[in-house]
Amino acid sequence: MGAVGAGNQVGECMIGQTQSEVARSTGATAAVVAAGRELSAAPLHDRPKAVARHCLLDWLGVALAGAAEPAAAILARESGTGAGEATLVGRRERAPASLAALVNGTAAHALDYDDVHLALPGHATVPVASAVLALGERLDAPGVEVLAGIVAGVEVECRLGMLVNPSHYARGWHATGTLGTFGAAAGCARLLGLDDEGWGRALGLAGTQAAGVNASFGTMAKPLNAGKAAMNGLLSAVLVADGFTSSEAVIEAPHGFAAVATEALAPTSALEAVSGRHLIERTLFKYHAACYWTHASLEALRELRDEHELDPSEIESVRLEVSQQALDVADIAEPRTGLEAKFSLRALAAMVLSRVDTSDPSAFTEERVRAQELVALRDRVSARLADHDNAVGASAAIATRDGRELSASADLSVPASDLGEQGERLGVKFERLAATALGHDSARALREACEHADELGSIAELTALATPRGG
Amino acid sequence: MGAVGAGNQVGECMIGQTQSEVARSTGATAAVVAAGRELSAAPLHDRPKAVARHCLLDWLGVALAGAAEPAAAILARESGTGAGEATLVGRRERAPASLAALVNGTAAHALDYDDVHLALPGHATVPVASAVLALGERLDAPGVEVLAGIVAGVEVECRLGMLVNPSHYARGWHATGTLGTFGAAAGCARLLGLDDEGWGRALGLAGTQAAGVNASFGTMAKPLNAGKAAMNGLLSAVLVADGFTSSEAVIEAPHGFAAVATEALAPTSALEAVSGRHLIERTLFKYHAACYWTHASLEALRELRDEHELDPSEIESVRLEVSQQALDVADIAEPRTGLEAKFSLRALAAMVLSRVDTSDPSAFTEERVRAQELVALRDRVSARLADHDNAVGASAAIATRDGRELSASADLSVPASDLGEQGERLGVKFERLAATALGHDSARALREACEHADELGSIAELTALATPRGG
Repeated sequence: MGAVGAGNQVGECMIGQTQSEVARSTGATAAVVAAGRELSAAPLHDRPKAVARHCLLDWLGVALAGAAEPAAAILARESGTGAGEATLVGRRERAPASLAALVNGTAAHALDYDDVHLALPGHATVPVASAVLALGERLDAPGVEVLAGIVAGVEVECRLGMLVNPSHYARGWHATGTLGTFGAAAGCARLLGLDDEGWGRALGLAGTQAAGVNASFGTMAKPLNAGKAAMNGLLSAVLVADGFTSSEAVIEAPHGFAAVATEALAPTSALEAVSGRHLIERTLFKYHAACYWTHASLEALRELRDEHELDPSEIESVRLEVSQQALDVADIAEPRTGLEAKFSLRALAAMVLSRVDTSDPSAFTEERVRAQELVALRDRVSARLADHDNAVGASAAIATRDGRELSASADLSVPASDLGEQGERLGVKFERLAATALGHDSARALREACEHADELGSIAELTALATPRGG
Repeated sequence: MGAVGAGNQVGECMIGQTQSEVARSTGATAAVVAAGRELSAAPLHDRPKAVARHCLLDWLGVALAGAAEPAAAILARESGTGAGEATLVGRRERAPASLAALVNGTAAHALDYDDVHLALPGHATVPVASAVLALGERLDAPGVEVLAGIVAGVEVECRLGMLVNPSHYARGWHATGTLGTFGAAAGCARLLGLDDEGWGRALGLAGTQAAGVNASFGTMAKPLNAGKAAMNGLLSAVLVADGFTSSEAVIEAPHGFAAVATEALAPTSALEAVSGRHLIERTLFKYHAACYWTHASLEALRELRDEHELDPSEIESVRLEVSQQALDVADIAEPRTGLEAKFSLRALAAMVLSRVDTSDPSAFTEERVRAQELVALRDRVSARLADHDNAVGASAAIATRDGRELSASADLSVPASDLGEQGERLGVKFERLAATALGHDSARALREACEHADELGSIAELTALATPRGG
């Protein structure tokens, strides 16, 4: 998890060293509980609160767009009714909070367009926000409490990722599902105001429910893992609040989570490097509706395209230098469908250089992918392994027909330092995704409510805006 | 899994060798699917059908008694409402089928008094029956289809246990939760009439949801694992029936279930030894409301007590020779609570020799455990490691005050050969457990309905009888 080490601490908010003292003196479960409780304590600092708002906004956008995807629609048929305590985002049905977390979590990951965190590695917000929103609606919780819940959940799941990786992910676990269960439990524990023992028990129930394998990738089971993490995490906290018992040291206990889920549990001292830091600030957002391993290449190409006002006809060849991960997953040479194009560095490069808006999920049509001009440009693109080990770093070199050599690189392991710019870019992404489900005016109203989420007296004011109107 | 090998095949029903041919030519997922489909095909043979009825009867009894336990009551508050498509056994609330499976599965394991299967090792019926009953109620399925679903689920989970053990359980997995998820999915796939591809996908979703760690033992999280297995398995099958996709080879796929859940996946040829056999016939039932590792000792003592009409005052000393598992788990020397007594060979021996009915969960009171006469007898009991490796075998030697040496042994790895006797004994157990929840007359009526379950036009006729009447 090099990307979580030094060098990426872009303006992170520090709140002192007490957490590392706790980590030294206690087991892993207590250490992540202490971090989650401390870092989400009221009043929330401005910067993590702003990032939590961004996470919430982006989650709402991808959930609204994803609600129409088959995985979410099937789950909604199984779970939803006309009534119920919580909203199914983008749909008219409602459901019990646990099932709403399941459906919304699946919807928000169905397009694989939600935010990314390298500490899992995976998608940090989706399990947490899906759980915290559904429970928040049941509790009629104020917006600021929901944001604190998101912060708590993300801090816990990221720290757990640091303790159980790299072997956890390498073995085949889908960390968004497994670690996300703990994150969702922590977020709901925060919302319910559980004490240390309650947090420990909630993580105990998370640890005995945590699941999800990477063999699910490429199927609807992948977003299901995110939805189940949300549901199971929510259940963990609400059952504990009502008196349920569990192991209170599930991570390090014999025959506990670490025993089954990792080759080596790192000592809690491994958390000292991030002590007091809000890891939610390292959330990485997706601005292309494609595999994240391709994004650095696309950002580098976008820079060259705009700086040099390049037209596709000027381009002789494009050479990309990318990570092994990108080559492993996203090197489909001759994609034939929109979905395959999302995992094709060559097709994506051609789309960006042709000024196709890759932030629009509907841009990925079979017709476009097979169009002669795009195929001709795609065939002038090559990709090879870079000589660095940054999974989300890449460089691009373009040779023009008039003999110029242009190059640029991008490192997407570094979160945005300018949160205003990040918020604006996310807002544009959000409005496009939300408008399809809600219409432009409602999408704009929801964006505005989200930008002031911490001032809302009840989160239900927000979720009400995420329901389509009319017949 | 020696107990599943040769030597225990007591009257098992064979249906030919085609399954082993399938196993040789395909992967693990397809092999267990083939076995599950073949062994639960209509018409079901008499012997497995009779055992499935016993499993159902016993499940109903422990679920009715367990419904009042805190774990089940808390879950019912979270999940149930006045309406809903499926019964919460022993309660007046109803719930969606998925949540009914969750609540009923937790209730049926809350007393840890449900049946046992050494192939998991764990509790085979609870996840399967909890799922199949809830889905059967939704579908208004005939009783014989529900029995076939139970058979299908048990065959699949037991075979999977043979493939992933011993390392799966040894590492810390609670097999009732993990393998039970596959069993519940298979049982529901059978009930829904899915084809090979559908079964494969249902197991694919089971494999990405399967969870449960043994660190949960001794807490409410243990029965929760059983309930979650039921719920997740049910969801797996119903989602697939509605078009959900997943890995169709989740057990053996790279980054699949075996990759994360076992050190070594056995080749499918390991299943040849049980090809065509109904492993449900190896179900072991509990007749003492205590840890299963103690039962062989108690059966041996019961035999000596009855054969020699022993009175506690005649007993000088008792020596037990038991398995390492019994010593590890059930050797609490000086229990102080009823729960501790369930894990105390010495206290249990004293109870049996004092003719306390250990089949009655309410026998385990703190008052009794601390009573002077029981403590005095308990302190004359010793336990040591036997020189065999049968986890559920034990021998007992009693020295009487008048100088006699009496000894007997019991091997509880061998299922009952006389199904009539087994049914009678289970019926007695059932009526006691059910009467507390329903009253004697209703308990008797439910027993009779269960004994003719395969003739019921709809399983809802049965579940209706499992609901308490009156205000």
